[in-house]
Amino acid sequence: MIDTALNPESFAAMPVAEKISAKVIERVSLYRQLLQRQRKEGKTHFFSRQLARLSKNTSAQVRRDIMLIGFTGTTNRGYDIDDFIEHIARFIDGEKAMNVAIVGVGNLGRAIISYYGRDPKLRIVAGFDTEPDRTDRVILGCQCHHISALETVVREKDISIAIITVPESAAQAVVKRLCSAGVPGILNFAPVKLWVPDHVYIEDIFLGIALDKVAFYTQSRRAKPGAAQ
Amino acid sequence: MIDTALNPESFAAMPVAEKISAKVIERVSLYRQLLQRQRKEGKTHFFSRQLARLSKNTSAQVRRDIMLIGFTGTTNRGYDIDDFIEHIARFIDGEKAMNVAIVGVGNLGRAIISYYGRDPKLRIVAGFDTEPDRTDRVILGCQCHHISALETVVREKDISIAIITVPESAAQAVVKRLCSAGVPGILNFAPVKLWVPDHVYIEDIFLGIALDKVAFYTQSRRAKPGAAQ
Repeated sequence: MIDTALNPESFAAMPVAEKISAKVIERVSLYRQLLQRQRKEGKTHFFSRQLARLSKNTSAQVRRDIMLIGFTGTTNRGYDIDDFIEHIARFIDGEKAMNVAIVGVGNLGRAIISYYGRDPKLRIVAGFDTEPDRTDRVILGCQCHHISALETVVREKDISIAIITVPESAAQAVVKRLCSAGVPGILNFAPVKLWVPDHVYIEDIFLGIALDKVAFYTQSRRAKPGAAQ
Repeated sequence: MIDTALNPESFAAMPVAEKISAKVIERVSLYRQLLQRQRKEGKTHFFSRQLARLSKNTSAQVRRDIMLIGFTGTTNRGYDIDDFIEHIARFIDGEKAMNVAIVGVGNLGRAIISYYGRDPKLRIVAGFDTEPDRTDRVILGCQCHHISALETVVREKDISIAIITVPESAAQAVVKRLCSAGVPGILNFAPVKLWVPDHVYIEDIFLGIALDKVAFYTQSRRAKPGAAQ
């Protein structure tokens, strides 16, 4: 399900940040999500063993991750939640906000605009589609354009990340245009492996594969009632 | 991003099918997706090295996976695509179709109904929500009910899998009710780790974590222009 699109040769030539594995980013992103919730519940500090329990990791793993992203500042009350969340934000999102475009403004595209629209560091500033009722208008606060304006809008709005929700048959052509226009990061929801040059990062979310996993483990439990209980 | 929710003790007590790792299912599901595309393009047979190239695995890995799911039937023309796809369908989805419910019929819920609605083996037969304009009506072909009818509808429609797209704050309570009602498989889109009993399988899709990964690798490339190129 996860495709880092990094081959060993290009990996060796990358700056240090690039060598942090996707698994670490996944865990750190989850820590942020869990601690945002703790903060909402009024907590101000945490110990590694508490975060380990919440994230279903070991305390040693949590401490290694905290060290790896360069966070210091534990006291006898534990780590400060606000400081840690701010540190993660700088680590993952960088200092500057990045502009995001969404290509394909159907049901899934709209769901993503509503979902990601809350993030101040990753702003969805443009949408693209081919359908007349989805272009030259604002959808859920996002200005939507005809796909023919892709290169112009990417340049004018300094788009760094594109989220792809177009049909499988259109996805590769769209991604080729995005790469040519200089977009360095892609999140792909189209159910197809896409080719990108080495300097572009692509992450796939294949909804079909996720449901297949649930189906497999569910039917094997149904087929043998009680066996796993 | 992926949580099998299987602890080592319950794992040991499971039937053989349960011991096939989620990674194998992910790859096999991807093979099916890739070969469905090959079939559309008129191909009838494939060799392991071709599937390896398409899926970015090694030929040895592809052959191991094919063996592991019990598929035989290579000839000097290669494996038969139709037979292999049918074998995967029986392996992943089982012999009987399973009924699926979606809890939360907002933008994401609707996107998922449109997306998954095409699968004949996994039919989305019910939706649940609390909003009056999303209940007691048919949305995208799916009968939607008030959440208060959850247990009744789960029983009447023999629901095996629930897809969760409710807000974080409501997710755990919904999942608790689903588990009590006997639903053995859950696909969770709410951005929160949920507790389920050992005999229930849960798979998370955390959209926020996926975008965080793209953001991290993108900002590190932007910060050092040319470094990774």
